[in-house]
Amino acid sequence: MSDTLPAKVKMTDIARLAEVSLATVSRALADSPLVPEPQKQRIIAIAEAHGYAVNQAARNLRMQTTRTIGLVLPLGHETGQQMTDPFLLELVGYLSEEVFRRGYDLLFSKNLSPQSGWLNSLVKSHRFDAMLVLGQSDQHDEINAISAHYNPMVVWGERLPDQGYCSVGVDNVHGGRLAGEHLLSKGRKQILFLGPAQVPEVAARLKGFTEVLAQAGHKLIPAQIIETHFTPDSAYETVKGLVASRRRFDAIFAASDVIALAAINALIDAGRRVPEDVAVCGFDDVAMSKTMSPALTTVKQDLRLGAQLMVDLLFRRLAGEKTSSAVLAAGLIERAST
Amino acid sequence: MSDTLPAKVKMTDIARLAEVSLATVSRALADSPLVPEPQKQRIIAIAEAHGYAVNQAARNLRMQTTRTIGLVLPLGHETGQQMTDPFLLELVGYLSEEVFRRGYDLLFSKNLSPQSGWLNSLVKSHRFDAMLVLGQSDQHDEINAISAHYNPMVVWGERLPDQGYCSVGVDNVHGGRLAGEHLLSKGRKQILFLGPAQVPEVAARLKGFTEVLAQAGHKLIPAQIIETHFTPDSAYETVKGLVASRRRFDAIFAASDVIALAAINALIDAGRRVPEDVAVCGFDDVAMSKTMSPALTTVKQDLRLGAQLMVDLLFRRLAGEKTSSAVLAAGLIERAST
Repeated sequence: MSDTLPAKVKMTDIARLAEVSLATVSRALADSPLVPEPQKQRIIAIAEAHGYAVNQAARNLRMQTTRTIGLVLPLGHETGQQMTDPFLLELVGYLSEEVFRRGYDLLFSKNLSPQSGWLNSLVKSHRFDAMLVLGQSDQHDEINAISAHYNPMVVWGERLPDQGYCSVGVDNVHGGRLAGEHLLSKGRKQILFLGPAQVPEVAARLKGFTEVLAQAGHKLIPAQIIETHFTPDSAYETVKGLVASRRRFDAIFAASDVIALAAINALIDAGRRVPEDVAVCGFDDVAMSKTMSPALTTVKQDLRLGAQLMVDLLFRRLAGEKTSSAVLAAGLIERAST
Repeated sequence: MSDTLPAKVKMTDIARLAEVSLATVSRALADSPLVPEPQKQRIIAIAEAHGYAVNQAARNLRMQTTRTIGLVLPLGHETGQQMTDPFLLELVGYLSEEVFRRGYDLLFSKNLSPQSGWLNSLVKSHRFDAMLVLGQSDQHDEINAISAHYNPMVVWGERLPDQGYCSVGVDNVHGGRLAGEHLLSKGRKQILFLGPAQVPEVAARLKGFTEVLAQAGHKLIPAQIIETHFTPDSAYETVKGLVASRRRFDAIFAASDVIALAAINALIDAGRRVPEDVAVCGFDDVAMSKTMSPALTTVKQDLRLGAQLMVDLLFRRLAGEKTSSAVLAAGLIERAST
């Protein structure tokens, strides 16, 4: 059939073939409600059969829609955290599935050096209809400022007292309590906390953890909080240094499974046994936690459920609804490392 | 300062403040080479200071640029393969890093039901400047057709005899040979191959594997090729069924680490020992291969290097260069599972 048409198919050709007006073709291809659905489908089928490609960028601009969801990583604190981080990748994987299932694409943007106003510029770039933000990092004020006039946004992270935006995250304070109670129940007395304590989610984990230890009479002194980044190399070197300094400790609560795995590797390489000499508890329950050796005791964040909730809330906000934030339950998964 | 300006800043306001013509403001904000760099920076700074947000979608359309790279998954064969698959996620992670490092965003699109012409429509949607395709699946002809008139595209996958496009992938035939030689060197005689043999990369692995076995006198009869999908559930059920059927085998070469891990779980759950009763060799070397128990012998695909190459070739093609395809060396990593 396409032999009978010029090489570059025009909208007028489609109008002629479909025996409708040019205006109707234009409306149908723009998915206008003014064209009855069966007629619209027939016109789109004719256009596709003849290789007519809509310039989607131009069409989106006209329609004020992109059929795209923005996915933003504001790694202010943790600029070294790579996109290859298992926790980030698992969350991105689940979010992708949810977004694709709704027929949307994902525009993925990592901000390497957030400057004041960056989030606003991104929103105003008109390249997506709604925005998922992964982690607050040190950008809480920036996110809060946007939320006053931008509804279709959902943030993965800790629920903070003064926040104006919708967040989804695990109950980090309770998760920290679970880790503390578990390590105390194993008779551990000298427990180190490893993680980037200035990240809001980590600060909440540390809060729950220290509360439990204080109640048990183990006042966690500041020196027992060991600052380390979310990267395995940073955590490995930190634990290697701790062992070399002959510091005494019989347990580690790591702020993430990646830190816990690196800590275990550093301990084993230094001749310490896990859990006999040092018990290690992680946070996240990423896939490798159950397959690694020893399998890792950890506080589970249900990322599949979290992703479903985030995308569900996002589409409700995109439709104009004002939704509340959601806090997921944390659960301790006991395995061989404690 | 912004108090002295109307709520919505216009380009004319910026022209007044910068004491230049409206045309110069327009050119400066569009990053035109006609405006000297110091003047351009001064105008942009004034615009930003007064909250003037460029409509980037409109600007991109005008400039015929998007500063975005498309990332496309044509999962024709393997529609069940989830975005949470570790191999896909690792590759996406490395590719993201490379793309972000160059100041580009990533538009991520998964085609759930490819129809003829879908790739052409995507290219003509003008939402990205260049396109990475992850895997050929059953879409080789579609990709080939595009490559005749679309240069900025690089495909992860097997190099096929009649391809017109640029691909990056591991030497799958050699990888299959390495796996076969290794299992034979361990004295294994009844080796099963598990995987989706119609996927081009898997077909190449199977080719190398069967060549080695044929040379050694073990003619791999078709019944020893066990079809399974890339999903863990599919592979688990397949191996469970094999054990229940009392079929005799002393080794498995799995087309991916995900299949290998599921096979090991099914074997252990059925009371078989790995590697004593059944040796298992995977393909990919995803992160969990070294942390799982037993640690997995596998054929490594260097995904970090692969991602660097793909993005490097893509930007060279975007600049107009015609690049060749690249084949990465495969290497056997021996661990406890064999």
